[in-house]
Amino acid sequence: MFKKILIANRGEIALRIMRTAREMGIQTVVVYSQADESSLPVLLADESVCVGPAASSASYLNIPNILSAALMTGAEAIHPGYGFMAENPDFAEMCREHGIVFIGPTPESMRALGSKAGGREIAALSNVPVVPGTGILADLDAAVLAAKQIGYPVLLKASAGGGGRGQKIIRTQDELKKGFAQAQEEARLYFSDPDLIMEKFLEEFRHIEVQVMGDGQGHVIHIGERDCSIQRRNQKLIEEAPSNLPASLRQEILDAGVRLAKHVNYAGAGTLEFIVDRDGGFYFMEMNTRIQVEHCVSEMISGLDFVKMQLQIAAGEGLPLQQEDIVLRGHSIECRLNAEDPDKDFRPAAGKIQEVYFPGGPGVRVDSHVYEGYSIPPHYDSLIGKLIVWHESRDQAIARMRRALQEAVIGGPKTTIPLYIRIMDNPFYKRGAVMTNFLKTRMDM
Amino acid sequence: MFKKILIANRGEIALRIMRTAREMGIQTVVVYSQADESSLPVLLADESVCVGPAASSASYLNIPNILSAALMTGAEAIHPGYGFMAENPDFAEMCREHGIVFIGPTPESMRALGSKAGGREIAALSNVPVVPGTGILADLDAAVLAAKQIGYPVLLKASAGGGGRGQKIIRTQDELKKGFAQAQEEARLYFSDPDLIMEKFLEEFRHIEVQVMGDGQGHVIHIGERDCSIQRRNQKLIEEAPSNLPASLRQEILDAGVRLAKHVNYAGAGTLEFIVDRDGGFYFMEMNTRIQVEHCVSEMISGLDFVKMQLQIAAGEGLPLQQEDIVLRGHSIECRLNAEDPDKDFRPAAGKIQEVYFPGGPGVRVDSHVYEGYSIPPHYDSLIGKLIVWHESRDQAIARMRRALQEAVIGGPKTTIPLYIRIMDNPFYKRGAVMTNFLKTRMDM
Repeated sequence: MFKKILIANRGEIALRIMRTAREMGIQTVVVYSQADESSLPVLLADESVCVGPAASSASYLNIPNILSAALMTGAEAIHPGYGFMAENPDFAEMCREHGIVFIGPTPESMRALGSKAGGREIAALSNVPVVPGTGILADLDAAVLAAKQIGYPVLLKASAGGGGRGQKIIRTQDELKKGFAQAQEEARLYFSDPDLIMEKFLEEFRHIEVQVMGDGQGHVIHIGERDCSIQRRNQKLIEEAPSNLPASLRQEILDAGVRLAKHVNYAGAGTLEFIVDRDGGFYFMEMNTRIQVEHCVSEMISGLDFVKMQLQIAAGEGLPLQQEDIVLRGHSIECRLNAEDPDKDFRPAAGKIQEVYFPGGPGVRVDSHVYEGYSIPPHYDSLIGKLIVWHESRDQAIARMRRALQEAVIGGPKTTIPLYIRIMDNPFYKRGAVMTNFLKTRMDM
Repeated sequence: MFKKILIANRGEIALRIMRTAREMGIQTVVVYSQADESSLPVLLADESVCVGPAASSASYLNIPNILSAALMTGAEAIHPGYGFMAENPDFAEMCREHGIVFIGPTPESMRALGSKAGGREIAALSNVPVVPGTGILADLDAAVLAAKQIGYPVLLKASAGGGGRGQKIIRTQDELKKGFAQAQEEARLYFSDPDLIMEKFLEEFRHIEVQVMGDGQGHVIHIGERDCSIQRRNQKLIEEAPSNLPASLRQEILDAGVRLAKHVNYAGAGTLEFIVDRDGGFYFMEMNTRIQVEHCVSEMISGLDFVKMQLQIAAGEGLPLQQEDIVLRGHSIECRLNAEDPDKDFRPAAGKIQEVYFPGGPGVRVDSHVYEGYSIPPHYDSLIGKLIVWHESRDQAIARMRRALQEAVIGGPKTTIPLYIRIMDNPFYKRGAVMTNFLKTRMDM
C-alpha cells in the first residue's frame, strides 16, 4: 500500500479522501489555492502545498504545480477526487510519465469513454441501449427523415457541443424545417463546427446510475444503483440508494452497467449514468470515470468504503470482492448542502459561516469541510457539505432526513436546507414518483 | 402509536430519545432542571417543562413534578432514559396509576430483578450461573468454611450494600479471621444491618452484556452482546460489539441472557450483565431494565433503532422480529466523551465549551447534547457525548475511531479524548486482550 498520497482537490471530497487514508495509515499531502488556506482539509492534512491563486485554472487545474508538489513531497499517488483533474486523461498520463500513480482508470479508458461518440460506440458494442439518435446529419432532408423514424420531440445537438450547451428541442416537423439552418449556424458560431446530430428528446425521465468497481484485469462488480433524479439544471440535489425501480428493470440496468465497464476492462470506481423513461425504457448516457459526490449513499447500504477500494485497486492489491459478497441493506438518502438561495434562483451565497450545528444520532452521516467561522470562498462551487442518512426503509429514511434537516443549523449564508425539508414533505417525493423535472412540476421552481 | 411522550431525562439520552420520536412523528415534552435551561434537548423539544432546581433530587427525581408535567401537557407515556427514574419501580407504578405508560418493563419485573438476592434467585431458577457465593453468613466459622469451598480470594459484602460500597477483598484465612467482625461492624454502621454474604473475588474479568428485547408476552430475542471491559471504578469508558469471545462461549452467554429474560416475561429493552473469567467461566451479575448508554454499538451492527423498538413495545405494537431476523454485521466501538481530566484522577471539568468540532465521514456517529458556547453544569455526570464508529472488522473500527478522535476538537474543559487515542494505540487493546483492570495493568492509571 502507498505510504503517502497527494490529494488534488478541495472541500468535502479532499476531507473524505483524507479520512480513509488516515484510517489506512497513509500520509496525506493536500494541495490548495490561496483562497483555501484555512480550509479544514488543509488544517488536517499531514502536509499541504499551495499550488496557486484562487482561480482554479491557476491552482487546482495547474498541472505543473500539482505534479511538482507530488514529486517534492514524495507522494506515490494522486487522488483527483471529482471535478478538476478527475477526468483529464492528459493529467493521468503525465502522472504515469512521472512515476506517480493516478488513482483512477487508465488514460486510455478515460479517453475511450470521454467523447459522446465514443461512449455511444462502446455502449453499442457491449449491447447497452443508448437514446435513439443519429450520426452527423447531412442536410435538412436527412433530419426530417430521421425525426420521423425517432418520433418527435427530438433534440438537435451540436456534435461538438457539450455540458448541455448547443441543444435545441424540436417538437414538430415545422419547427425542424424552420430551425435546422439556424442550429447549424449557431453550432458553427459557438463550436466552430456546424455539424448536428439528432437524439430523441425525453420530456421527463429518471436519472439512474450504476456504481461499479473494476480491477483492470477484467473483474468488474456493481455496488447497486442510485436514483439521482432530483436535479436543477442538470445539477443533482438529492440522491438515494437503492432506486425504487421494478426488480427486473433494476437488474437489467445493473447488468448493462457491468457489461459496459467490463468491455473497457475498467479499473477503479466508476459510475454509469442511465436515463429511464416512463415506460421503463433505459438508455446509457455517459460514464463518470471517478468517485461521485453521491457515492456515500451506496457506501451506507453496502457497508463498503469506496475510497479504500480505489486505493487498493490503484496500489495493485486488486478487488478481492465477488458480486455475491455485496450485500445491500436498507435505504440511504443524501442531500447536498449548498450555500445558495433557492428563493433567488439558487444564487450562490458566499461569506462567513457564523454558526454551525450538524445533526447526529442514529443513521446520520455528515461529510463537510466547513466549521464555525469558516468563510466560503466565492471561487468554487457552492457545496458546503452533504447530509446522508440511512434507515431500514425508504419511508423511514425520509423521516430521518427530515429530522436531521430540522436539527441542522447553518448561520450566515442561505442554504438549500429549507428547500430539502419541503421536498421531504412533498407527497410525490414521498411515494417515489420523481422525474428530473420534479422541481419544476412538483415544487413550482 | 403515542402522539406525545414526555422525556424524563437530560443530556445526550434525552436528545437520543427525541430524535427517534421525531422520526416517528411523536411530539416530545422534555422536563428539565433550572441548570439545563439552555441545553439542546430543551431547545429542540416541542414542549419543555421546568421541574425544579439544579439538584437532581429536586428535579429529575421529583416524581410529583414530573407526573404533573406529563398530565399537564397530555403526554401519554414517559421515557425515563437511563439513570434517574429509569429503574425505579415505584415511579413506574405511579405512572400506571395515573394512566401514563411507563416506557420500560413492568414494576413487578423491575422489583424482581432489582435486588441482589432476587437476581441471583431468578438466575438459579432459569439455570444461569452466578458468581459462587453464599447466603447470609451465620458467623465466622461459617465464613471460614464457605471460603474454603469457594477458594480465596473472596469478597465479603454487606448484604444491604450496593453500588460497589460495603465490599472487602479477603485473600487469606488469616485476613478473614481478622476482618470478619470489622466488616460486620462497618455494615451495621453504613447500612444499619450487620449481615454479610460472601462471593468469589475475581481479580480480572471481562464485562460482557447481552442486549435483549421482550414483548412481555413471552417472546424475547437478543441483539448480540457487548464487551464493556474498559472501565474505571466500575464506570464504563469504551464499549464494543460484538465481543471477541470464542463462538461457543458467546452463544452460551446469549442463550443464558434470553433464558433469564424469558423467565421474567420481560417487556422492553434490557441488558444482562455477565462476568467472564480468564478460563471462560461466565456468571450473571445483574440485569439493567432500561436502555444503556452503550446501546448505540448494538444499533450500529444490527441496523435497528432500539428507542423505536421500546416505543413500539410500550405502545402495545409488540415485537415483530424473530431471532433469525437479527443480522449482525461488522464491528462497532463507542468512546464516552467525558469532561474529566484523566491526568488528575479523572476530576470532573465543568465550564463553558469554547469550541466544538465533531468528526464526520464514513462510519462515524455522534450522540451529543453539547454545542459551541454550551456550559456544562456541575450538577450531573460528566458525559458530554458519545463517539461511535462502525467498520467491517475490529481492526478497521479501531483505526476509524483513532481517526475520528484525532479530528475531534473540544475547546475548554479537559476531556477523555487524549486518553482514548492512547488506548486505541495500545497493543493489548488492539489485540482484544482486555479485562476490567485494563487501565491499571496496561495504562498505568
